[in-house]
Amino acid sequence: MLSLKSDTRPEWIREVAENLDEVLIDHAHCEKKAAGTAMNLLFAYVDQEPLCRELSAIVVEELEHFGMVLDLLSRRGIRFRRLAPSQYGRKLNDLVRKLEPGRGVDRLLVASLIEARSCERFAWLRDHLADAELAAFYGSLFESEARHHSSYVQMACLFAEEEVVRARLEELAQAEAEIIAVGETPVRVHS
Amino acid sequence: MLSLKSDTRPEWIREVAENLDEVLIDHAHCEKKAAGTAMNLLFAYVDQEPLCRELSAIVVEELEHFGMVLDLLSRRGIRFRRLAPSQYGRKLNDLVRKLEPGRGVDRLLVASLIEARSCERFAWLRDHLADAELAAFYGSLFESEARHHSSYVQMACLFAEEEVVRARLEELAQAEAEIIAVGETPVRVHS
Repeated sequence: MLSLKSDTRPEWIREVAENLDEVLIDHAHCEKKAAGTAMNLLFAYVDQEPLCRELSAIVVEELEHFGMVLDLLSRRGIRFRRLAPSQYGRKLNDLVRKLEPGRGVDRLLVASLIEARSCERFAWLRDHLADAELAAFYGSLFESEARHHSSYVQMACLFAEEEVVRARLEELAQAEAEIIAVGETPVRVHS
Repeated sequence: MLSLKSDTRPEWIREVAENLDEVLIDHAHCEKKAAGTAMNLLFAYVDQEPLCRELSAIVVEELEHFGMVLDLLSRRGIRFRRLAPSQYGRKLNDLVRKLEPGRGVDRLLVASLIEARSCERFAWLRDHLADAELAAFYGSLFESEARHHSSYVQMACLFAEEEVVRARLEELAQAEAEIIAVGETPVRVHS
């Protein structure tokens, strides 16, 4: 699914259900970080106008989702606060090559894989959460995460031939599957 | 006007008219930087939810303006490209205190002064540019810059008493007037 090389461990959904409030707070941070990542890419590659425009649109959409999760927390009386993040993003970013144009390809593909994993996890939440409001909420976010995954892969093709991008995506997706397979505590969207 | 302690040098508008394409490109970068500044503040003070929501809205609006300037460049056949920035933002940021809560106050007030100066300059462009489309464009941006100025000052009041914030704004506005009085070449939105 969406270039991913593994399905989520079934225990994850049980861990989420037992720590739902904290996972919701982590989700708000994930949306904020997704906006920040797109902004950083916009600054790094500002001389590529089509990329700028696409990244601007992603920043706006992620911030809209951030606001939606803040609203959800507020309705449930959960205080939004800082949280130790999962190690997932850091481990993926460690795989990014240092030199351009490989660096650009990798940064965009890592972003595409994080979106893909979010998408896969949101499908789990949609299908398995007993809370109907939350299940519907994750169902509503599913489509945009899938779309962002595809956008990032397409943007990577501005830096290298599509064949080269697809081969690198396979490699990074394999690494992503190994990182996510390890699992982490406390439970997070990407643990 | 808007806390500023000086008016723009009259020569600036002549310098702009002589280097209009480059100033328009610089303006696009200014909108991008304004979005980036609001995003950095969001990350730094994410535990203050009202601030987060206000900063998110500013990021979205600045990116919308960024897109509008890119459209304008495109209609005029001007290629968007990297440009050496003015020293204005760096000099202002050098005035930010290192320790909280003064640091937060100063970061927000520096942002408020940059918005105020943009606003003042956009009024000049609106009133003095011979190009009717550009004059109308700057007229349309004037209001949101003024609003952002006020928002940033209000946000600073989350970090200190209003009286303390107003006194610090006076100091920083004085410093801003001295920085902008020096002038710079090449001409920029904030030169």
